[in-house]
Amino acid sequence: NPSTIDVTALTDRLAFLNEADQLKRIERASRLNDNSRFENSAEHSWHIMLHAMVLEDQAGSGVTLDRVLKMLLIHDIVEIDAGDAPIHGVVDHAVMAVKEQKAAERLFGLLPDREGQSLIALWQEFEAAETSDALFAKAIDRVQVPISNLVNGGGSWVTYQVSLAQLDQRVGIPVSRGAPGVWAWLRPQLESFFREHPALTG
Amino acid sequence: NPSTIDVTALTDRLAFLNEADQLKRIERASRLNDNSRFENSAEHSWHIMLHAMVLEDQAGSGVTLDRVLKMLLIHDIVEIDAGDAPIHGVVDHAVMAVKEQKAAERLFGLLPDREGQSLIALWQEFEAAETSDALFAKAIDRVQVPISNLVNGGGSWVTYQVSLAQLDQRVGIPVSRGAPGVWAWLRPQLESFFREHPALTG
Ligand SMILES: [Ca+2]
Repeated sequence: NPSTIDVTALTDRLAFLNEADQLKRIERASRLNDNSRFENSAEHSWHIMLHAMVLEDQAGSGVTLDRVLKMLLIHDIVEIDAGDAPIHGVVDHAVMAVKEQKAAERLFGLLPDREGQSLIALWQEFEAAETSDALFAKAIDRVQVPISNLVNGGGSWVTYQVSLAQLDQRVGIPVSRGAPGVWAWLRPQLESFFREHPALTG
Repeated sequence: NPSTIDVTALTDRLAFLNEADQLKRIERASRLNDNSRFENSAEHSWHIMLHAMVLEDQAGSGVTLDRVLKMLLIHDIVEIDAGDAPIHGVVDHAVMAVKEQKAAERLFGLLPDREGQSLIALWQEFEAAETSDALFAKAIDRVQVPISNLVNGGGSWVTYQVSLAQLDQRVGIPVSRGAPGVWAWLRPQLESFFREHPALTG
């Protein structure tokens, strides 16, 4: 019934959804499993949501999958303004945090006030990595690329000359905090890969 | 704790997640908002989940957003084997339905039995378009491209020489069943577009 529609709210939401389309053009340092091209942040977000759903029973107690899925759905939208900071790249984290906060305010700010504020809060919860939901979401975000790299010949580990010790820090710590069983499963496979490919990586 | 992990289940799930990566290479008939390239089904799935979340209040009563998000997360995975059937293309729907059912069985069948069965059931619910959740999910799936085409100069309407009467059938019917307020908002804009661009379309 047209008379019950808040036309302004719908118009603002659609402006946000159209702006969000740009996430499909944000290129990441990681590649598709078949090595054909770099992955973009929109399809990456889809893929890690699938990981979260399928690996739900690996989450700690008190994790609500529905909140995790929403977190992962929006977690990279700030990259439209701030760009992607590759996990193995050299990044000034303080500068990046300021850029991302501004990006969150501009992008989620396209939405009607209360809706935008609630997505900013959800994004900040993800970034802070303190709640159970955020810890699982962060673990899932970190675990997708290693799983891909195991099948695509090393991928971004080769580009960035990453060592197993660096993976233990950058992937092992967050994944064992949020999804310890996945790390216990993954770690021996990483060890084998690095043993078998000493020349590829750092 | 490694001793509590069902290693076989994790290995099967990860095989499914790696296979699902191929959705990033399934090209659709629709283009990005900036017209730079065709959209793929993985990033499309991400984008329509964002639409569903932001347009949640346009859903009918009895719709559970969390189930809708899961439906949209998996709704296109069958395309890895069956390909994308463009909404405005010429498609033998009976042949396509058989292909998609086989695809669902192979792809979701990579998962542990009970998990795979539950995703096949969710996908079938989406396809059947009878429950409230499926009707909203279908409406959202249909509404993203028209919203993009309004800003990208017509997109797939031009390629397929689509008329407003055809959009009323192919988009208007499902969108007004699942998200009537969105259709009431969109229809006048489509009318203006087709009035202003008589030469572009069918
Ligand atoms: Ca589709």
